[in-house]
Amino acid sequence: MKIYPINGIKLSSVFSGMYKKKRLDLSIVEIGSGSSVSGVFTKNKARSDAVNISQNNLKKANPKYLVVNSGNANSGTGENGYKDIIKYSKKLSKDSGCNMKDILVFSTGIIGERINANKIIKSIPSLLKNLNKDKWLDFSYSILTTDKINKVVSKRIKLGSELVTITGVAKGSGMIRPNMATMLSFVATDMKIDKTSLSKMHKNLSEKSYNMISVDGETSTNDSSVLITTNNTKTSYKKLSLKNKKYFYESLESIYIELAKKIVKDGEGATKFVTINVSKTNSSNNAKYIAMSIANSPLVKTALFAEDPNWGRILSAIGNIDTKVKDLSKVEIYIGNFLVFKNNKVSNKYKENKVKKYLKNKNIEINVNYNTGKYKATVWTTDLSYEYIKINAEYRTWFK
Amino acid sequence: MKIYPINGIKLSSVFSGMYKKKRLDLSIVEIGSGSSVSGVFTKNKARSDAVNISQNNLKKANPKYLVVNSGNANSGTGENGYKDIIKYSKKLSKDSGCNMKDILVFSTGIIGERINANKIIKSIPSLLKNLNKDKWLDFSYSILTTDKINKVVSKRIKLGSELVTITGVAKGSGMIRPNMATMLSFVATDMKIDKTSLSKMHKNLSEKSYNMISVDGETSTNDSSVLITTNNTKTSYKKLSLKNKKYFYESLESIYIELAKKIVKDGEGATKFVTINVSKTNSSNNAKYIAMSIANSPLVKTALFAEDPNWGRILSAIGNIDTKVKDLSKVEIYIGNFLVFKNNKVSNKYKENKVKKYLKNKNIEINVNYNTGKYKATVWTTDLSYEYIKINAEYRTWFK
Repeated sequence: MKIYPINGIKLSSVFSGMYKKKRLDLSIVEIGSGSSVSGVFTKNKARSDAVNISQNNLKKANPKYLVVNSGNANSGTGENGYKDIIKYSKKLSKDSGCNMKDILVFSTGIIGERINANKIIKSIPSLLKNLNKDKWLDFSYSILTTDKINKVVSKRIKLGSELVTITGVAKGSGMIRPNMATMLSFVATDMKIDKTSLSKMHKNLSEKSYNMISVDGETSTNDSSVLITTNNTKTSYKKLSLKNKKYFYESLESIYIELAKKIVKDGEGATKFVTINVSKTNSSNNAKYIAMSIANSPLVKTALFAEDPNWGRILSAIGNIDTKVKDLSKVEIYIGNFLVFKNNKVSNKYKENKVKKYLKNKNIEINVNYNTGKYKATVWTTDLSYEYIKINAEYRTWFK
Repeated sequence: MKIYPINGIKLSSVFSGMYKKKRLDLSIVEIGSGSSVSGVFTKNKARSDAVNISQNNLKKANPKYLVVNSGNANSGTGENGYKDIIKYSKKLSKDSGCNMKDILVFSTGIIGERINANKIIKSIPSLLKNLNKDKWLDFSYSILTTDKINKVVSKRIKLGSELVTITGVAKGSGMIRPNMATMLSFVATDMKIDKTSLSKMHKNLSEKSYNMISVDGETSTNDSSVLITTNNTKTSYKKLSLKNKKYFYESLESIYIELAKKIVKDGEGATKFVTINVSKTNSSNNAKYIAMSIANSPLVKTALFAEDPNWGRILSAIGNIDTKVKDLSKVEIYIGNFLVFKNNKVSNKYKENKVKKYLKNKNIEINVNYNTGKYKATVWTTDLSYEYIKINAEYRTWFK
């Protein structure tokens, strides 16, 4: 897949020594002047000072540099964690000539252990020297932790006479993750968008993508999503025709959804990619809660792993959600296109062996129709396998 | 352990043919006249008609018979499920001379498949014929599904000049269960207690026992708890001295807590028994939510299975709870007696190898001190092992 650079964005990555094994583990991203940056951050109260500092700086200034490391999350590290960030930010500020408040920092990896600021400090000169607009691929590798594959999506679209580019990377292994499910996402475009619209757009995009993948409520201490525009197009988003506005927004949305799906597909121990569509509910939130209840049920997940059409577990997951719909008699449950439950009981048309065969596919759909309203939601998730336990039981051996 | 019969309660159990393998799978409990019965039922909206019927009948009459089967949950079975219950209840009503509304029914086992009412009907004559006050042990076996061990607790205490007896059985394998976590509990005492006090007591007891074990929010379609008093003592509970009231209540409470702990210890694939104490919070509910967040975290559970002191996962589980305590700087985390986290960072006293050694024990304590209030809660849970996945992936092969 072609990765299009974004005018105004330069990147570089190195091995700074956070891991035992040699691999890219530290990047900086340089953001050209005139750019706008929006951030969405974890709500976890035990969050890293990296998140606190980035969120504060975003309020004060237009960021010029992102510093992103993997291997150490710098969370649960108290005042030392804060001091360490200041220490390496000072070095970057000095060497690049930017202000401290122009730097955002992102960390993912093991938590509770002090980050080695000196390793970052030592790497800054070469990182600055090697900044290059074509280094998105290196960047995508440098942020990985337990991920098996890197995650990049890039698109160039034509809006009238202009070419607009969107490129993004993400990390995270989806479902329920070691070291607390850290999800990082960095997406950039050259489309001219005012800061207020950018923030609003970013919030909506996160809601429809990263908030729609099953992380079983375990928001990490470090989850962060950054959306950058370098504002390099002639026409601004606001002045686009309705049709082109929609085209741009949907292109950007598809980048987010593709990155989110890549995270799920890389889910720890995942053997299935599961799409859960809940439709015709009485509110949008309810549609999401119902889909998430199914997605997060270990019973549903283990049945999917076993390729066992145990639809009763889906029914129970639905029954547990307080949707104010007391009567489930209108609810229909489909596995793929197979109707399994209707009128409060197993469907007359239900053939277990057919559904069993369908469940042998890698991509599975569960469709639930509430028939009580007009709202819907789609959530993506994985099954729960032996491999998941293995990965999460052995995680810390990677570092010691 | 000695199992004391309860004056006024008779039981009998048979193999009715719900399972392939021969085992007790159907019981009736006869409740003597003058008794009072209280029920606490699942809030799952996809619940079995067994639950609906029992709850309704409890409002109308003083139950004379409980019918309890394992092997089939009779849920997700629509109107047929209802008809089947009526069918076998009619037989019991006819043969025993009681009214239909005097019968409560309880089912646990596979869901979505029609229960074989004829198997129950055929067994009723012999069940009625063999009623016996000493059959609690058989009863405890007949209600099991995936449980590896039966669960009975029995106590005889002296209150003044009177001996008071409490005996109870339960089923459930704790953590997150196949066939939707069905938990059944039947406890009886001969203590004279008015119906209002009995209901109130029962609600509080359930809250402190079965609601304090980690079932990851997956309330089953069939969860039911029944508390019976045969009112055979001379002195009533209300007329006891404060001290004796307390003694009786605590004895009853210990029965519930012991049954709840037995369920956790029998948790699927459990290799650890984990007690989570959360103290000094600003509300009782928050203490419970925090403890449950830790207990239900797959990341904490897999770390416990691996005997890995990855306390960051405990911190993250705490950080995810919305307790209105925004600042975690007062929070202390102990694993066993080892202080691991204080003042927002790893404790100076923390020695990883000591905690690693401690985690090799079967019984593990996690203690979290919020230092912001006076409330507390204790939750019991298990780790998450390969065995859990195995049990839940293979469950349905037991029946087919």
